[in-house]
Parts: sequence; C-alpha cells; structure tokens
Amino acid sequence: MSKRVVGAEIERLIQLMSKLPGLGPRSARRAALHLIKHREKLLSPLVTSLAEVSERVQICTNCGNVDTKDPCTICADLNRDQSQICVVEEVADLWALERAAALKGTYHVLGGTLSALDGIGPEDLNIASLLQRAAAPGVSEIVLAVNATVDGQTTAHYITDHLENVDVKVSRLAHGVPVGGELDYLDEGTLAAAVKARRPF
Amino acid sequence: MSKRVVGAEIERLIQLMSKLPGLGPRSARRAALHLIKHREKLLSPLVTSLAEVSERVQICTNCGNVDTKDPCTICADLNRDQSQICVVEEVADLWALERAAALKGTYHVLGGTLSALDGIGPEDLNIASLLQRAAAPGVSEIVLAVNATVDGQTTAHYITDHLENVDVKVSRLAHGVPVGGELDYLDEGTLAAAVKARRPF
Repeated sequence: MSKRVVGAEIERLIQLMSKLPGLGPRSARRAALHLIKHREKLLSPLVTSLAEVSERVQICTNCGNVDTKDPCTICADLNRDQSQICVVEEVADLWALERAAALKGTYHVLGGTLSALDGIGPEDLNIASLLQRAAAPGVSEIVLAVNATVDGQTTAHYITDHLENVDVKVSRLAHGVPVGGELDYLDEGTLAAAVKARRPF
Repeated sequence: MSKRVVGAEIERLIQLMSKLPGLGPRSARRAALHLIKHREKLLSPLVTSLAEVSERVQICTNCGNVDTKDPCTICADLNRDQSQICVVEEVADLWALERAAALKGTYHVLGGTLSALDGIGPEDLNIASLLQRAAAPGVSEIVLAVNATVDGQTTAHYITDHLENVDVKVSRLAHGVPVGGELDYLDEGTLAAAVKARRPF
C-alpha cells in the first residue's frame, strides 16, 4: 500500500505483523485494523503483554525451554521425575507434549536437528549439555521425542551413539496409527510400522 | 495449556494473540514462539510499533478513516478531488479501493450497514455526517461502494433516498464478471447482471 493512504506508523505495523507465521500481507492488514478497532480491549493489553514478555522471557539454562524464569517452571518443579529427560527439537514440541500431559519427567530442547544440507552440526545444537545431563547421577531414561523425519532420526541416532557408554535407557516414541485416524488415509510406512508393533488385544 | 508449563506472561500473550482474526489457539502459540525466538528483530520492533499506533492512531472526524492524523492523509490531500465522495462500509474497504487506485476523490466510512436483524439503525452509522458532507457546496458525486449484500444494498437505498433533495449524482459500483474470472464458476445473479450491462466491444 502506498504511503498516501495510511500513516507510516500503521504501515510499519502491518509490515511487522505480516512477518508472523500464518499471517500474510492481507491478513496482517486485517489484524492491524482489528487491533485499531479494539484499542482498549485488545491493542493496549497486547502492547503491555508483548513488552512484558519481551522484557522477562528467558531461555532455561538447564533444558532450553522458554519461560519467564530460569530454571523454567518444569525444571524447577520438584514433583517432576528428574530421572527422565525427554529430548525434543523445538520448544513447540515441548509444549505439545505438555498439553498431552504424556510425561512426568523433564525436557531437553535441542533447538533443531542435525542437517548436512543446512550445515547444522552437533555444535550448533544443545547436544553437549544433553550428554552432560544424561551422565549425571539419578538420570535413568532418555526419551527421544524428535520428529519422524530423516533429520530427526539422524539426530536421534547421533545422540544414541554418544550415549552408548552412559548408563541410561534410551527410548523413542512409538510409530503407529494416530488415535482417531483412518487406515485408508495412512501412508505405507506408518501402516507397516503399526503392524510390526502390533500388541495383544 | 496449564499454568505449569509456561509463565503467566506467555500464557496471556498467547491468549491475546488468539483473538486476532486469522489466528486460532494453535497458530497464536506458534506466533508467540516465533516472536520469542526473534526477540531483537521482531518482538522489540513490534512492541514499539504497536505502542506507537496505540498512542497515535485516530479516527478522521471528516471521513471516518483511521490514520495517525486528523484529518487523515486522504482528506488533507489537496490533490484529491473534493467533489467526489466514495461511501464504504469499513476502513478495510477504503484501503482495498486505495490499493486499486480506482478513485481520485475522498471517502466516507459508514462503520457498517443498516441491519434490522442486528438492530443497527441509521443513527448507529456515520450517515448524518455523510448527508451533511454531500450537501456541502462543491460536492458533485457520491459513489456508493458498499458490499453487494442485502444489508449493503439496503443501506445504499436508504442513503439514495435521503440524497433525493440534494443536488448530487449518486452512482454505484458496476456488477459483472471479475477480471480474470471464469464464467463457469460465477453465480447466475452476477452473470445475468454482466449480460444486462454488456458494453460495445
């Protein structure tokens, strides 16, 4: 949109909003207008909230989670099973697992996966700190909850190799039919894995 | 997500973001994480930009457009044709017409349409100020650029009725085949209107 129509401030806001995932130029304009229309109820609280997060958010030095305190809420929670470390690629994966309330242990965020194509090596990820945590006394299981992609699996193998001499159990998430999923729509790889891992009914 | 996982500040940010049009709870979480990840390059500028807009944005007392000055950039632009007023429902419509650079005149934002169902009467819209502007000396044309919906057309009729005694030409946008559109996918009403309004080739 040309500078003639709206002030530079609104222009800049639209430009910034369009950089958010899920928002394109058109939806960014819609979102900006929505904010302007609901100034008291949405725009002002959002300004406060963003400023607060921007000021207070930090990366947990123990696990790599983002939170407003360090160590994060999960690492600081004494009720969590400190003997179990669940390894995830991104903070979003950690949040997804927490929503499922699937694990009672702690987490470790790698910050990505190994990738020869993108030139991402072990030193670019939080792998050294994971190996260090895994070797600490009291840790008995590492759950590899990385994505079922080539890069994810490469990373899982790399970590498993480096944990060979450490006295911990290494497990990975099960492959199978998603709950509520229809067989007809599943790929052959998943179906084969689900059949192979079939369990007594 | 339970309070256990992330601090209340991040929780609140996700909740606010999910109120934006086009963002649900899942995409709001993704957007919040994206902001946290790109703190310097995106989060901080966005805080500044939102605060600036929140502080400086105003509604143009002349036409109802939103801008950082009053009268707005368009109303204050002496190069625009002050004899033409284009009536739109929402600011988003004004922006869309400006992107098309279709008009050289000024605008008037109604702030909605008449709607018996939603109990929206003429006094809830910027209609009185429109009639006042239309009656001012020098104004020669009112372009009704309201949506082609029942409520939009009702509003157009209402305005036309009230402009009967005012010496201005009232026009409306043409109906027809959208540029680049395929006839096969068009509804009968549009096709019939396009045939009826056919022009020499």
